[in-house]
Amino acid sequence: MSLKVVIIGAVALGPKVACRLRRLRPDAEVVVVDQDSFISYGGCGIPYYLSEDVPDESSLMKTSFHVLRDPQFFREAKGVTVLPRTRALRIDREKKTVMVQDLESGERTELSYDRLVLGTGSVPAIPPVPGTDLENVYPVSNLRNALDIKKTIIGQEIRHAVVIGGGAIGVEVTEALADVWGIRTALVERLGHVLPQIFDANMAAMAEHHLREKGVEVLTGESILRIEGDAGGRVRSVVTDRRSLPAELVIIAAGARPNSRLAQEAGLACGEGGAITVDEFLRTSDPDIYAGGDCIENRSLLTEAAVYAPLGSLANRHGRVIAGHMAGRGDRFDGVVGSFIVKIFDLCLASAGLCQHRAIAEGFDAERVLTVGYDRAHFWPERSLLFLQLVVDRSNRRILGIQAVGKANDAVAVRVDAVAAILKHRPTVEEISNLELAYSPPFASAMDSLNALGNTAANLLDGLYRRMTVGEALERLRSEEGNPLFLDLNAPRGAAPYVERYPGRWLNIPYEHLSSRLEEVPRDRTIVTICDSGIRSYESQVFLAAKGYGDVYAMEGGLSLLRKLGEDLLGP
Amino acid sequence: MSLKVVIIGAVALGPKVACRLRRLRPDAEVVVVDQDSFISYGGCGIPYYLSEDVPDESSLMKTSFHVLRDPQFFREAKGVTVLPRTRALRIDREKKTVMVQDLESGERTELSYDRLVLGTGSVPAIPPVPGTDLENVYPVSNLRNALDIKKTIIGQEIRHAVVIGGGAIGVEVTEALADVWGIRTALVERLGHVLPQIFDANMAAMAEHHLREKGVEVLTGESILRIEGDAGGRVRSVVTDRRSLPAELVIIAAGARPNSRLAQEAGLACGEGGAITVDEFLRTSDPDIYAGGDCIENRSLLTEAAVYAPLGSLANRHGRVIAGHMAGRGDRFDGVVGSFIVKIFDLCLASAGLCQHRAIAEGFDAERVLTVGYDRAHFWPERSLLFLQLVVDRSNRRILGIQAVGKANDAVAVRVDAVAAILKHRPTVEEISNLELAYSPPFASAMDSLNALGNTAANLLDGLYRRMTVGEALERLRSEEGNPLFLDLNAPRGAAPYVERYPGRWLNIPYEHLSSRLEEVPRDRTIVTICDSGIRSYESQVFLAAKGYGDVYAMEGGLSLLRKLGEDLLGP
Repeated sequence: MSLKVVIIGAVALGPKVACRLRRLRPDAEVVVVDQDSFISYGGCGIPYYLSEDVPDESSLMKTSFHVLRDPQFFREAKGVTVLPRTRALRIDREKKTVMVQDLESGERTELSYDRLVLGTGSVPAIPPVPGTDLENVYPVSNLRNALDIKKTIIGQEIRHAVVIGGGAIGVEVTEALADVWGIRTALVERLGHVLPQIFDANMAAMAEHHLREKGVEVLTGESILRIEGDAGGRVRSVVTDRRSLPAELVIIAAGARPNSRLAQEAGLACGEGGAITVDEFLRTSDPDIYAGGDCIENRSLLTEAAVYAPLGSLANRHGRVIAGHMAGRGDRFDGVVGSFIVKIFDLCLASAGLCQHRAIAEGFDAERVLTVGYDRAHFWPERSLLFLQLVVDRSNRRILGIQAVGKANDAVAVRVDAVAAILKHRPTVEEISNLELAYSPPFASAMDSLNALGNTAANLLDGLYRRMTVGEALERLRSEEGNPLFLDLNAPRGAAPYVERYPGRWLNIPYEHLSSRLEEVPRDRTIVTICDSGIRSYESQVFLAAKGYGDVYAMEGGLSLLRKLGEDLLGP
Repeated sequence: MSLKVVIIGAVALGPKVACRLRRLRPDAEVVVVDQDSFISYGGCGIPYYLSEDVPDESSLMKTSFHVLRDPQFFREAKGVTVLPRTRALRIDREKKTVMVQDLESGERTELSYDRLVLGTGSVPAIPPVPGTDLENVYPVSNLRNALDIKKTIIGQEIRHAVVIGGGAIGVEVTEALADVWGIRTALVERLGHVLPQIFDANMAAMAEHHLREKGVEVLTGESILRIEGDAGGRVRSVVTDRRSLPAELVIIAAGARPNSRLAQEAGLACGEGGAITVDEFLRTSDPDIYAGGDCIENRSLLTEAAVYAPLGSLANRHGRVIAGHMAGRGDRFDGVVGSFIVKIFDLCLASAGLCQHRAIAEGFDAERVLTVGYDRAHFWPERSLLFLQLVVDRSNRRILGIQAVGKANDAVAVRVDAVAAILKHRPTVEEISNLELAYSPPFASAMDSLNALGNTAANLLDGLYRRMTVGEALERLRSEEGNPLFLDLNAPRGAAPYVERYPGRWLNIPYEHLSSRLEEVPRDRTIVTICDSGIRSYESQVFLAAKGYGDVYAMEGGLSLLRKLGEDLLGP
């Protein structure tokens, strides 16, 4: 007897389960229903459809060999029945049926199943403020919204836009609006920095500085109070707790919530945020019902706790596992480490695991360490700077996460993905120091930036590296608190303007002359060593400590980091 | 009492040990001797010095902050004494001394040590044929050779060059000569393909095709018999077992041998090839003598056996471990997985672990599987093709290695380094399928090419994917053996020329119409499915098998792979 499988949702997870299952079990009868007529599209490409990198929406719905993934394609090529514009209304677990309704005709049908798969995805989180229903206020939750937004941009005179929410989709859409369409765009984030769940404030600050350089108004720690419209019901402005922003277009990118209504009504176990609870085979509390993609809870491989991780890449992997397990194979899904990457204009930001503030919230004794280095050999002509940050458990030297900022090429991914790959194996800083990245001058350094990050973390944990963060250093420089002396190890030409600007507080001794000019370094003041990247300042700090200087710190990241953060010590 | 440390060799390992040790143990007296006057340089940059990517040799001897790493620098900035032009003649382990000779004055001195470090590096392997001592015949083993080679290229009329040895340095130097200097260059490799220890023949063939496209004469499986000179003793030609090649310049890049004479004379344990045996703390058989870099044996994390891995990146890591252990820290060096990357004109090739032929030689039941995919989302405009090959142990699904070919950007490194990072944790194919690479359309695919590689390997091991290799397919197409029918799943326009060229042996049914046109596929012939990348051919092979076709195979990699290999089925 053939296996009857019903799948609810036809965007990412559903089609993956259906096609893989048909290959493993050619006898399976597979029906996929979706309430929309847009099916099987690359939702993560929506910001790039808005930016015109992806020229038309059909590109997101085509295979890599340029065939449209429509119901006919699924039927003929995959042997899968897809019913678009068909809403699943109710699951009857006793009878093992799903009541569905054809949204065109209104007709209801009962589909029986041996196995049911829930790929119901997510719904956009809409801030509970007045005005979200005004004209030209859109979430970016699916391709239909995207088409509407693009039509609005093209068809109307949009001079100002407000993007609500500084997560990945928020910044991607912001770039599209500001860069390609020349719209004056404000990005409003309720929390203290953009990408708040994924990056620590110091790393996110590089993105914020870059967005501002590109003309975006970045407003963090600011809450939306209401959205106001004109007499015709079209949006006119967004009012926050601090200002009123003009806006002919408002994009809501305030995150997603699992769409688990059907599961809840059917009595399936769900977690706190409503995401469906699944086991390692992605079975719900009813073993005949599987779930995956944006509607489920994942298990964190860092904390073992349930996490919500609505990502297309995970949906695809879930799909393969569900099909495999349903077909009797040993497939399982262990959990997630939380890999992330985003392009923001000319920058790439990526991370894996936990950032420091989340690690602390999870109860870890989490330290962070930042390094600045090159993405390839320092003598290779086309090198660029990489800003890497490791989050480490002080108690056992375990790596909890990594964050990186660099140019919008793949150099950031090389380092973050290597760490993402091993996170489940609970590496320590020593494993990062010895990680054997492939080396050749056009691609890496002999001691790669990632190895150097591990080394620096070890030095910090061992007390050899006594770090002063940028924040502390700036505060002390500006407040003159404790009257610290900044010891600049750079060459005289670079250091001269600082010496002039900060008389009595900025001393220049080039790194290679420090030992011979040691008597110039006072013993009765706090010394903060500083250089271009943090290496010479670290080595000099160690040297001074060995020479009996008790109150000496090295400023992390050096002038390169200050520049990246938009901090100009010579500015007005 | 202070720690007295003598280090022999001042290129990569020696300076690393010295500087790190001085930071950990500021009381240590550190002396580094080297017989050359060039010290502390980036030897891996030599091919790029020849290609002018690195404009002058001093760039290879400077720090990232542009200060020359000369003895004065080491003395003043690092507190380390470096004695260049000083040869270590003899180690007396009883007395704990090293006899050294100043090569300028001839004077001999005895240096006493508490700890000795051997960083004596490697010497070039010179083929035992007549003529290697002719003028304009150079190894590329150090910066001195490199200066001589460049002087020759600039100062003389060099129209033809022969590079002996198709390893990494051989191909890098070949590119420099052919590309930048316009020299007609022949690359001669004794074994069956270039990069023979690192790649399988099918992957290396992509590099060979690319080298030929760039005008290089690639001669594999060909042995040098002698090098001939003119009356003045200058090289004129290279004679192989198959031909005579004109050459005004010959580069010997036939590998390296450990330079362990001193160690052997001192009675330290050495391995078969003469490399110094060390423990996990990089101590030799004499616990007061450490060794690292190109002169030691490493332990393979794949096979547990000793391997010779002369790489600057390892030398740097060894150096840090030696200094750490000597200073009483817990540092250790577990072993190597053998990561590798090389740029060849517009291509990047990388690998980690074992290739199939080496894995088989090591006694593994090794299978290989190849996939063709994109390096980012298939709808992202600037995508390019990635050719990935996984080597897997059939008996337990363990990953033994990965090889990759792609564009000369970092996309290859992203995938290879992620696998390199986990190899020591003994992953199976399922871990590759679920590897959580950071996903966003500009950087990866939702189901990344690397995940797809894991999936394909699983399908092959499970018997679902019945592969025909390119080699087999070409042989059967050309010999008509068994009269196989090639079933082309591409669109009609692409398939038409093949159908015309191979009447009765090439059938075109577009993938999405296969099920409706099934009766056109004969049941009495061997069917070889083929498409552009291997995906549709795999799916169609599975479909046909489910429909009862017993003798059906999918050709790996499709037409994309054939093109990359330079195989033109429509050619003469």
